[in-house]
Amino acid sequence: MKRLAVFTSGGDAPGMNACIRAVVRGAVYHGVEVFGIRRGYNGMINGDIFQMTSHSVSNIVQRGGTILKSARSKEFMTPEGRQKAHDQLIKHGIEGLVAIGGNGTFTGALKFFEEYQIPTVGAPGTIDNDLYGTDYTIGFDTAVNTALEAIDKIRDTADSHDRIFFIEVMGRDSGYIAIQSGIAGGAEMVMVPEVLTPISEVVETLKQGWSRSKSSSIIIVAEGDEEGNAAEVAEKIRTQVGVDVDMRVTTLGHIQRGGIPTAYDRILASRLGLGALEGLLNGEKNVMAGVVNNELRYTPFIDTIKLPKPINEDLLRMVRILSV
Amino acid sequence: MKRLAVFTSGGDAPGMNACIRAVVRGAVYHGVEVFGIRRGYNGMINGDIFQMTSHSVSNIVQRGGTILKSARSKEFMTPEGRQKAHDQLIKHGIEGLVAIGGNGTFTGALKFFEEYQIPTVGAPGTIDNDLYGTDYTIGFDTAVNTALEAIDKIRDTADSHDRIFFIEVMGRDSGYIAIQSGIAGGAEMVMVPEVLTPISEVVETLKQGWSRSKSSSIIIVAEGDEEGNAAEVAEKIRTQVGVDVDMRVTTLGHIQRGGIPTAYDRILASRLGLGALEGLLNGEKNVMAGVVNNELRYTPFIDTIKLPKPINEDLLRMVRILSV
Amino acid sequence: MKRLAVFTSGGDAPGMNACIRAVVRGAVYHGVEVFGIRRGYNGMINGDIFQMTSHSVSNIVQRGGTILKSARSKEFMTPEGRQKAHDQLIKHGIEGLVAIGGNGTFTGALKFFEEYQIPTVGAPGTIDNDLYGTDYTIGFDTAVNTALEAIDKIRDTADSHDRIFFIEVMGRDSGYIAIQSGIAGGAEMVMVPEVLTPISEVVETLKQGWSRSKSSSIIIVAEGDEEGNAAEVAEKIRTQVGVDVDMRVTTLGHIQRGGIPTAYDRILASRLGLGALEGLLNGEKNVMAGVVNNELRYTPFIDTIKLPKPINEDLLRMVRILSV
Amino acid sequence: MKRLAVFTSGGDAPGMNACIRAVVRGAVYHGVEVFGIRRGYNGMINGDIFQMTSHSVSNIVQRGGTILKSARSKEFMTPEGRQKAHDQLIKHGIEGLVAIGGNGTFTGALKFFEEYQIPTVGAPGTIDNDLYGTDYTIGFDTAVNTALEAIDKIRDTADSHDRIFFIEVMGRDSGYIAIQSGIAGGAEMVMVPEVLTPISEVVETLKQGWSRSKSSSIIIVAEGDEEGNAAEVAEKIRTQVGVDVDMRVTTLGHIQRGGIPTAYDRILASRLGLGALEGLLNGEKNVMAGVVNNELRYTPFIDTIKLPKPINEDLLRMVRILSV
Repeated sequence: MKRLAVFTSGGDAPGMNACIRAVVRGAVYHGVEVFGIRRGYNGMINGDIFQMTSHSVSNIVQRGGTILKSARSKEFMTPEGRQKAHDQLIKHGIEGLVAIGGNGTFTGALKFFEEYQIPTVGAPGTIDNDLYGTDYTIGFDTAVNTALEAIDKIRDTADSHDRIFFIEVMGRDSGYIAIQSGIAGGAEMVMVPEVLTPISEVVETLKQGWSRSKSSSIIIVAEGDEEGNAAEVAEKIRTQVGVDVDMRVTTLGHIQRGGIPTAYDRILASRLGLGALEGLLNGEKNVMAGVVNNELRYTPFIDTIKLPKPINEDLLRMVRILSV
Repeated sequence: MKRLAVFTSGGDAPGMNACIRAVVRGAVYHGVEVFGIRRGYNGMINGDIFQMTSHSVSNIVQRGGTILKSARSKEFMTPEGRQKAHDQLIKHGIEGLVAIGGNGTFTGALKFFEEYQIPTVGAPGTIDNDLYGTDYTIGFDTAVNTALEAIDKIRDTADSHDRIFFIEVMGRDSGYIAIQSGIAGGAEMVMVPEVLTPISEVVETLKQGWSRSKSSSIIIVAEGDEEGNAAEVAEKIRTQVGVDVDMRVTTLGHIQRGGIPTAYDRILASRLGLGALEGLLNGEKNVMAGVVNNELRYTPFIDTIKLPKPINEDLLRMVRILSV
Repeated sequence: MKRLAVFTSGGDAPGMNACIRAVVRGAVYHGVEVFGIRRGYNGMINGDIFQMTSHSVSNIVQRGGTILKSARSKEFMTPEGRQKAHDQLIKHGIEGLVAIGGNGTFTGALKFFEEYQIPTVGAPGTIDNDLYGTDYTIGFDTAVNTALEAIDKIRDTADSHDRIFFIEVMGRDSGYIAIQSGIAGGAEMVMVPEVLTPISEVVETLKQGWSRSKSSSIIIVAEGDEEGNAAEVAEKIRTQVGVDVDMRVTTLGHIQRGGIPTAYDRILASRLGLGALEGLLNGEKNVMAGVVNNELRYTPFIDTIKLPKPINEDLLRMVRILSV
Repeated sequence: MKRLAVFTSGGDAPGMNACIRAVVRGAVYHGVEVFGIRRGYNGMINGDIFQMTSHSVSNIVQRGGTILKSARSKEFMTPEGRQKAHDQLIKHGIEGLVAIGGNGTFTGALKFFEEYQIPTVGAPGTIDNDLYGTDYTIGFDTAVNTALEAIDKIRDTADSHDRIFFIEVMGRDSGYIAIQSGIAGGAEMVMVPEVLTPISEVVETLKQGWSRSKSSSIIIVAEGDEEGNAAEVAEKIRTQVGVDVDMRVTTLGHIQRGGIPTAYDRILASRLGLGALEGLLNGEKNVMAGVVNNELRYTPFIDTIKLPKPINEDLLRMVRILSV
C-alpha cells in the first residue's frame, strides 16, 4: 500500500486528534503517503481530501474535537453516495482507509468494502465506551473525568444545602460513564440501562441514608436508563418519598464530548492510531484496533457491531458497598 | 464588642469558606470571640451555634460550598422566628453578626435590627454579581471561569460538527455571567436580561457569519433573558432561519455554583470577610462590605437592596466588535 | 491611518492571543487593514510580516502563548536594526503599531518613534504585573491561578507529612504573584522583593505556628527576594531553627508563563487590545493602554518605564492576619 | 477477624483517601470494626489509633494527600519499635492490617509478621508505578496528568519562543511517569533510567528536527536517568550541539505528588482498598492487592519487593515514531 487516508466520523471525542496524529506520523515513519478526509464520508463523497505531512499534525495532541471535522452522512448510505466516494478515492490513488469512529462508521466501511474492496481498519472513537473489542474507547476517560469534575462541583452545593441531586450523564445504551463517574464521585446510587434499578430501591437507599443522618445524596442517571432520564426519575421518586425533600436535577450535556484529552486518552488514541495504521499496512481489513488487557488486538467489524459489551458487575457492587 | 457570629445564607458560592476563614481569623487576631451559625437563619433559630477558633478554618480556603452550610429560612420571615433567633443570640452572648449572602439575607438582617438592635455587617456572597455596592461578588469569578471551561469544551464539538450552540448560563436578573463568559469564550452573541436583543438581530448575526463562511457559532443566553431561556430562543430562531441548520441547546446548570474558588474569589472573599469583621468591630451596622475601584467600601443594606447594578455597556459593545 | 501592524515581544504571557484577536477584529470593525509581525522586533527587521483577517484569529482566544511568537531582539537596539525595521514597515505601508509586551518593548518603541515617527500604542503583556499605568497586566491572573493550583497540590503533601514547604514563584522585581497566590493559597508567610522580611521574623512565625500545633506550613518566596531564592531562604532558616524539621523547597518555574488564560485575562486582554487599537486610530502614540479602577486609561511609555508600581501593603497585612 | 486497622505509609499519593474510604466502608459493609492509624508505623508505635465509621470517610474521595497522614518510621526498623507497635495493636484488639504504601511499607509489614504474626494486606500507593504485581499504582494516573498539564503549559512558551525545554519529572528508578507524560505531551524525546539514551542520540534527534524546521522541542527526563538530571543532561547537550540554541530546564517537583485524584485513580484506589480488605477478611496475608489485566490479584510482598517491573518497550518505540 502506497497511499492511504484517515478520517473521523460520528460524534467527536477527545483524543481523536491524537489518533489522527499517530496515523499520520506512523505513515510518514513507514514511508507511506497519507491523506486526510474532512467531515467523514461526506468529505469522501465531495472530494474534501488533502495530503498530510508530519507538520500537519504538530501541536494537536492536546486539542479536543477533531481537526478533520466529523459528520454523519446520509448520502453514504445510498449506492450513489458510495459510488461517488469510490470515484474520489480512485482519483486520489487512495488504497486503504483508517476510520476513527463508532459502529455507524464501521457499518458503512463494511458495506463499502463489499462493493469496492477498499480495506478499512477502524479505531474506536466514542465517549460512550460501548464498543466490543476494546476495553476502552478513545474519549471515554476524558468524558468520565469531565463528568467527575461536574459531580465534585455539585457536591459542594449538595452538601451546603442538604440536597439530593440527580445528575444525568451521557450513555444512551451504555452505563459506563455513569458507573465510573459515580464510583469516582462517591455517588450514593448509579442508574444504568444495562441493569434495572427499580425506583423503590432508590427510595429505600435514600431513606437508609437519612436514617444515618446523611444529609445530601447524589444519584447518577445514565440518559438511557429504563426508568427514564434524570428529571423523570426524580419526579417518580418525589411521588414515592412522601416527605418534602429538596431535590434538584441537572443534565451535564454536551460538555462531556469536548475538552482537553487526558493522558490516558492521548496514549490510548496514539496506540490505536498507530495500531490501526500498522494493521492496514500489514493487510488487515474490516477490523477495529482495540486494546484488551493492555494488548493490541484486531476485532472484525462484524463483531464490534453485533456483540454487546457487558457492564462490569463488580463495579456496580462497589457502588453499593462504598455508599454504606 | 466581645463576641460575634458569622453565617452563610442563600445560595452557596465558591469563596464563602475563604470569607468565613477571614472573619474567624480576623476575630482571633483582634481578640474577639467568634461563633459559627449553621444553615443561616434556620440555625440561628434552632441554636445550631458553636464557637470557632483559628484551627476551625484550617485548610478550607480552597474549598467550594460553605462549611457553615446554607439555607433559606421561611421561619425567620415571621416575628416568632426572629424572636427565637434573638433568644438564641442572647443565650450565647452574641452581640453582632457577619452575614455572608445576598439581598434576601440582608433584608432579613435589616428587619432583625429594627426589632432587636443586633448589628449586622454583610459580605456579598452570590455568583450572580447582582449586588449594588461592590464591583464583584464572592463566587462570580469562579462561576465565570466554570462557564468558560464549559464553553471551551463545547466549542470543540461546535467546530468539529459545524454547529450552532445555544448555551444557557445562570443569571435570572443579571447578565454578568453571560457577558463575561461570552467575551472570554469568543461567543458570537450574548443575550442578557438587561438589554433587549430581538431574535431578528440574532438571525441577522448568524446569517452574516455564514456569509463569511463561519461554520460554527456559540450564543450565550442568560437564563432570565426576555426572549426566553436558551431552548426557547433556539426554537424561535429555528423558525425564522428557514434553512436547515444543526442547532443544539445546552444548559450549564448547577455546576456554576460549586468548585474550587479562583485566586480572585479567594482574595476578594478574604478581603471582604476581614472588611466586614473590622467594620462590625468599628461600629458599622446594616451595611455590606464591598470593593469598589479596588477600595473597601461600606454600602447601606437599604441601597444594596433597592439600587440596581447597571450592566457595563462597553462589554456588550465588545461582544459585537470581537465577533466580526 | 489605513494600515497598522501588531506584534508581541518579550516573555510570552497567557492572554496575548486574546489581545491580538481584539486588535485584529477591532481593525476589521473599523475598516483598517491590519498586519501581523512574527517574533517581535526581529520579525520587523526581517520582514516576517503578513496580512491578517478576522479569520486569522479564529479559535485562538483560549490559547496560551502567542501565535505571533515572541523574541527579544538585540539587533533592534542598534541604529542599523531599527533602520531595517523601518524599511520593512515602509515597504508594507504600515503607519502605526500595536505592541504587546513590557518595558523592554516600550523602550524600543520610544526610541523608534524618536528616529522614525512611527507611533506605537502598547498593551501590557507580562505575567509579573510590574507595569505602572494599569492595575493588572495581561497574563497575571492566569499566572497567579497556576501558582495557586500548584500550592493547593503541595499543601496536600505538606499536610500529609507535617512538612514546611518553601515555594518559589516568579517575580524578579515584583512580589505581586507571591502575595496574591500566597493569600489565596493560605500561606503562612510571603516574602517579596519590595518589603524586607528578615529571616528571624520567618523563624518567629514558624515557631508560633508550632506552639499552636500547626503541623505544616507554606512559605511563598518571590524569586527576587532580598534574602535570596527559596533554596537560600530555606537554608538560612534551617540554620536558625535549631531543631530538626522536615523542610522542602520547590520552584514552580516556567509553568507560570503558559496555560489556558483565565476569564479575567481574556477579558482584560480583549479590552486592552481594543483600547490600544482605538487609541492608535484616535491619534495616541507612545502610550500604554491600561485599566485603572475599571476604566481604560493611556499612560505615556516614559511613565510606565520610569515609575515604580507600589505593592499593596493591605494585602501584606492580610497575610499576617489570616495566618494566625 | 473482628477488628482491623488501616494506615498510609511512605510518600503520599493522590487516591490514598479513596482507598482508605473503601477499606472503611468495606469493613462497615462486612460488619467488621475498623480503626485508623495516623502517620504510618509511627502512629502504630505511639498509639495514634482511633475508631472509624462510615461517616469518618465522607467527602474525602476527591481529596489529595491522606487524612491518616503519612511518615517514614526509623523506629519501626528496630525490634523495640515493633514491640511497641505490637503492644498498641494488642491493646486495641486489632487483628489485621491494611497498609497503603510501597515497598518500604511492605518490607516492614513482612518483618512485623515474622515476629508477631499480625497479617497485613497491602495496597500499592505510590505515584511512581514502580511496583511489581499491579499494572498501575494508586496516584500514578494523577501524577501523569499533572505532569502533562505542566508540559502543555510549557509547550505554549516553547512554541512562542522557538525554544528547547528539558523537563524533569519524578521517577528515581522508574521511567513510567516520563514515558506516559512524554507520549501524551508530544515530547520529542524521553529519557528514562531503564534504557540508556546516549547524549549523542538526543543531539541527533534535535538536529533532525531542525532540518525539518521544527522550531521548538520538549525533552522529558526522569530524575533518575543515567545521564543525570535534566540540568545535567541539558549542559551535556549544550556542549555537543555547538551552535547557540535557546535551551531551558525546568523541574516539576512536588506538584506531582498532590492534587485532586483523577477518575482512574479514585476507581483503582477504591477497587484496591476493597480488594485488600476482602483479601484480609478471607485469610490473605503478606500480599499486595493489585489489578493486572483488569482483574484483582494478590501478589506476595516478597515478589513485589524483589521483582523488577519492566518498562513497556512498545511505548518507547511510540515516542520515536510519533516525533518524526
